[in-house]
Amino acid sequence: MSNTLSADARALLFTEARTANLFTDKQVDLDLLRELYDLMKWGPTSMNSCPVRLCFLTTEEAKKRIMPALFDGNIARVQSAPIVAVLGHDMEFFEYLPKLFPHAPENKKIFENNETAAQINAFRNSTLQGAYFIIAARALGLDCGPMSGFDNARVDQEFFAGTHVKSNFLCTLGYSDASRNFDRGPRFEFEEVCQVL
Amino acid sequence: MSNTLSADARALLFTEARTANLFTDKQVDLDLLRELYDLMKWGPTSMNSCPVRLCFLTTEEAKKRIMPALFDGNIARVQSAPIVAVLGHDMEFFEYLPKLFPHAPENKKIFENNETAAQINAFRNSTLQGAYFIIAARALGLDCGPMSGFDNARVDQEFFAGTHVKSNFLCTLGYSDASRNFDRGPRFEFEEVCQVL
Repeated sequence: MSNTLSADARALLFTEARTANLFTDKQVDLDLLRELYDLMKWGPTSMNSCPVRLCFLTTEEAKKRIMPALFDGNIARVQSAPIVAVLGHDMEFFEYLPKLFPHAPENKKIFENNETAAQINAFRNSTLQGAYFIIAARALGLDCGPMSGFDNARVDQEFFAGTHVKSNFLCTLGYSDASRNFDRGPRFEFEEVCQVL
Repeated sequence: MSNTLSADARALLFTEARTANLFTDKQVDLDLLRELYDLMKWGPTSMNSCPVRLCFLTTEEAKKRIMPALFDGNIARVQSAPIVAVLGHDMEFFEYLPKLFPHAPENKKIFENNETAAQINAFRNSTLQGAYFIIAARALGLDCGPMSGFDNARVDQEFFAGTHVKSNFLCTLGYSDASRNFDRGPRFEFEEVCQVL
């Protein structure tokens, strides 16, 4: 195992990677979804709590169910995507801590008795896992378009009714039409957002 | 640029990577902090809002300032780390949208007039950036130990007083003593947390 990532690999994941807007009609091999999960799942979460829950919309019929919840600016993006992933978190993730964090199963009680702590942990850690998802998708050669412009309550009702899962964000997956990407936005310089003490 | 990440690179970032517990005394070249930021900054955020703010504690004197805010289980970890990063988010990130998202500068108003939306956006997107930070650190050969077991209000007072920045989580950085890592926790199987519709 090499100690650092090559320039090529940095380009694939970060320096040259771009958020997808619209997609080509190249389909996504459904085996890649499993490969994607089997890569992202190794990213660290607090107490290995792994609160993310995923719902992959892979058919036109499934995609139709999410359309009414989208903000206008995201409709064409979702329509053009071969796959749309709904990323959510299980608000009762702590029920699984005895399995996932076997050396301190009693930590379940920290969250069982403190709804605010549970909410913060679920949101923070499912979002970390959402970023691992984005990076893992790029690692597999997929382009992705993460988006939070939608009605969360409506998505929860449609896809997570009767569960303790709440939606976090959506992510389109496929092979983007690079000619339809937006210009890349500027980033802050190190000095603008970093202090060294 | 290759289309997919090699098995070696997947190992470095995901499949073989491990959260650091205690560190060797090998120091971290401070130029790496800049390299780390210049890699992670390219990860996508909503409306390119880039709300993360970073404070790197690189001296014993700086590290001493965070000690009183730590939960007991994290004291030895922080003490042994050559660098501790405090990751926070600027609750007034939207002030910079006209610069960062120049094709829709009016989006600033969405958040200016809706504190809840601003809080959710700041937390979600700084957390995505926190995960990019973890992956970028690994890409540079660093080991990291993310942790949320600390008193956020106390850290905010110590490092972000007089600003609109709120702490999110901490991350130790260095070269870990692999013999002191915890056993790797189990992960959910695909079928346990993923639906395909």
